[in-house]
Amino acid sequence: MNESLLEQLEAVLASKKYADAAQMVKELNPADAAALMDELDPGKMPLLFRLLPKEFAAELFAYMEPEAQETLISAFSDRELDEVLDDLFLDDAVDMIEEMPANVVKRILRHVDPDTRKMINQVLNYPKDSAGSIMTMEYVDLKRSMTVEQAFERIRRTGVEKETIYTCYVTDSRRKLEGIITVKDLLLAPKDAVIRDIMETNVKYVTTHTDQEEVAAMLSHYDFLALPVVDAEECLVGIVTVDDAIDVLQEEATEDIEKMAAISPSDKPYMRTGVFSTWKKRVPWLLILMISATFTSSIISSYEGALAASVVLTNFIPMLMDTGGNSGSQSSITIIRSLSLGEIRYADVPRILLKESSVALLCGGTLAVCSFVKLMLVDRVAVGVAAVVCLTLAVVVLVANLVGSTLPILAKRLGFDPTVMASPFITTIVDAVALVIYFNIAKLLLGI
Amino acid sequence: MNESLLEQLEAVLASKKYADAAQMVKELNPADAAALMDELDPGKMPLLFRLLPKEFAAELFAYMEPEAQETLISAFSDRELDEVLDDLFLDDAVDMIEEMPANVVKRILRHVDPDTRKMINQVLNYPKDSAGSIMTMEYVDLKRSMTVEQAFERIRRTGVEKETIYTCYVTDSRRKLEGIITVKDLLLAPKDAVIRDIMETNVKYVTTHTDQEEVAAMLSHYDFLALPVVDAEECLVGIVTVDDAIDVLQEEATEDIEKMAAISPSDKPYMRTGVFSTWKKRVPWLLILMISATFTSSIISSYEGALAASVVLTNFIPMLMDTGGNSGSQSSITIIRSLSLGEIRYADVPRILLKESSVALLCGGTLAVCSFVKLMLVDRVAVGVAAVVCLTLAVVVLVANLVGSTLPILAKRLGFDPTVMASPFITTIVDAVALVIYFNIAKLLLGI
Repeated sequence: MNESLLEQLEAVLASKKYADAAQMVKELNPADAAALMDELDPGKMPLLFRLLPKEFAAELFAYMEPEAQETLISAFSDRELDEVLDDLFLDDAVDMIEEMPANVVKRILRHVDPDTRKMINQVLNYPKDSAGSIMTMEYVDLKRSMTVEQAFERIRRTGVEKETIYTCYVTDSRRKLEGIITVKDLLLAPKDAVIRDIMETNVKYVTTHTDQEEVAAMLSHYDFLALPVVDAEECLVGIVTVDDAIDVLQEEATEDIEKMAAISPSDKPYMRTGVFSTWKKRVPWLLILMISATFTSSIISSYEGALAASVVLTNFIPMLMDTGGNSGSQSSITIIRSLSLGEIRYADVPRILLKESSVALLCGGTLAVCSFVKLMLVDRVAVGVAAVVCLTLAVVVLVANLVGSTLPILAKRLGFDPTVMASPFITTIVDAVALVIYFNIAKLLLGI
Repeated sequence: MNESLLEQLEAVLASKKYADAAQMVKELNPADAAALMDELDPGKMPLLFRLLPKEFAAELFAYMEPEAQETLISAFSDRELDEVLDDLFLDDAVDMIEEMPANVVKRILRHVDPDTRKMINQVLNYPKDSAGSIMTMEYVDLKRSMTVEQAFERIRRTGVEKETIYTCYVTDSRRKLEGIITVKDLLLAPKDAVIRDIMETNVKYVTTHTDQEEVAAMLSHYDFLALPVVDAEECLVGIVTVDDAIDVLQEEATEDIEKMAAISPSDKPYMRTGVFSTWKKRVPWLLILMISATFTSSIISSYEGALAASVVLTNFIPMLMDTGGNSGSQSSITIIRSLSLGEIRYADVPRILLKESSVALLCGGTLAVCSFVKLMLVDRVAVGVAAVVCLTLAVVVLVANLVGSTLPILAKRLGFDPTVMASPFITTIVDAVALVIYFNIAKLLLGI
């Protein structure tokens, strides 16, 4: 978002030059214009919106934030609402309706035509995060008996309102999907060729209940621009386009990152989530982790004798715990991301364990050597204590990497979400293990 | 990847029924076929590849892993190499060349025609992660004086080899970009309309040196299928298509996640990164963090007196440090992700601090109350000790959230990568702060 442009626009509006402001806005790309309009004073924005060319205004509307859309809808006359709704793509309309309060939804549904209302209700009924909930029903459908020329005629006649015209779907009289054909294929084929002979019949599709993450992964894997969605009877009900797939991939990455930081994922951007709901998403995890961490207290108190015998050992507890936690996070987060990108299979587990052990020995060895030098030269501790700390370091890193790489895979195998096995949980587990290792090595080497 | 299909295919190959195997492979989508071929025995795979229809084989080749591509190139006769290279899109060819050893690159460059060689060398010369390095030069260019009919003729004549035909680029005699027009616009316009009158002149473009992440963000923001790339003289040199943008977004999310876990980002998937290079990416961060963590040792030893007076305080050190670290990570990771999605501006900082403080007071309060109940009823510690621990909890969570939310924004403001300010660094800082707070509250309340 261009902040200086926003300031300029606000200045123009402040001096009540609405026509000039409209001129500024309509020269922008609709997505950029929407970002500006979102930031304007809700008292002035609807006035400005009315001065924009109708088609531009409708496109801009689809890109706006729900708050600004709601402001506009409340300001709209019935005729204005009709005009905007008429030009909105079905999936954008559904996205908007999902964010509106009930009374606004009612008003919107009263204003769309009965067919659209039926389609909107259908999409709204699909489970959250399913292909059905993100698809659009506005695709180009062709019949197998059409010639290329007839197909182009149909595209010309119906294409304006379609989300994409570049992939066309060939269906039979019962809407069963028979094949797809791209506009590129149509352009490169002779005009009298028949669709049936040139269409692609090996069609990749998803069902209305396929998870949106899988849909996005398929679009990305096959480099498609759109993917057809069929219902339980294998009839075509909609398509998911690549621009929606990008949004899904971004959302899912955010969700994974949030879960890795022990936060329940949020649907809304940070600035639009309230204090109370942020608290609700964070506190359960903090509580669970805090209670798990109290195990470390019991471990420490059960080794009080050893600690009393060699008080200096206390000083290295935080460093050992932190290093173990960091090392375990490195492994677990690498594995979790590879799992979510589909790079790892169960058959790879032995290779993963071998690799993580080797990396752990190298890393742990490096840390132990560096630590030993520092402990002897800088901290000047007894050689026995230095040996205990460094040996613990090496063992803890090895255990941390094995725990960090195994638990996410195990979680996935058992049907849980592997992201939960990220840093915070791994850290808690590794902390406890690190203390037990530390005190036992100390008892062994120092004879306490 | 379908594992049972792989087993079937391997069984068919083992019984030397190559024609049957080829039949199985060519019924698949090229992307799926490539994933299968990647896993086959390198001794048999080239034989099977030769039995596939030429066009299908060339498309499949582009989807294969570099290792399998190298196996094939070594097995290819000169004529076979020519055929595959002829059908490869320029950006796929460049991707492949970047992964090949020098002798293979030489052989490839000897086999492409001089024009393609020049283009490949040009793309290879752009900085890593720039628009230039991921663009393709295979786009459809039109002239402003053409009619719609002439434009379609040109698309039909040159379109087969283009990466996308759906957005066409209007350039002048010096290749300067004058406008764009989509095939949809062309289809919906009258045949005798002139491009100049119907093209979009408000064109979004990037330069060859624009960072690939910005390119991908623009494609996603504007819902474009392709974005033109111009050189310093504003001449069109290539386009970046949406499928490449998706790959970039996925790569960048992986990079962010790796950096958040204190790992130097890697170009290769996990399973293809060697032990030694994994070590090199992880150990510097572990070392830096370990050395930072030793500050906590100095803090503990400087409060030895307080600890000796009340030994039980030691038991709660890990729990307090962990909770502070977890809480700080929640804030920092939320802010880092919002920064990278462009949801936060500097002007939002006061609102962010207010929000994080409120959330921290709620979270810290909840944790303190729960902790107090547990300490009194389960652990049965003295009420003074319980008060110290719980008050520390509340203060630490507040400090952790403020540190966690401020540092990433500060890092970005100073031109550093905010992702480095993720969990591990925040944890290290918060650990030290938590200890100082803990011991001072203990001194104050317990009078030690």
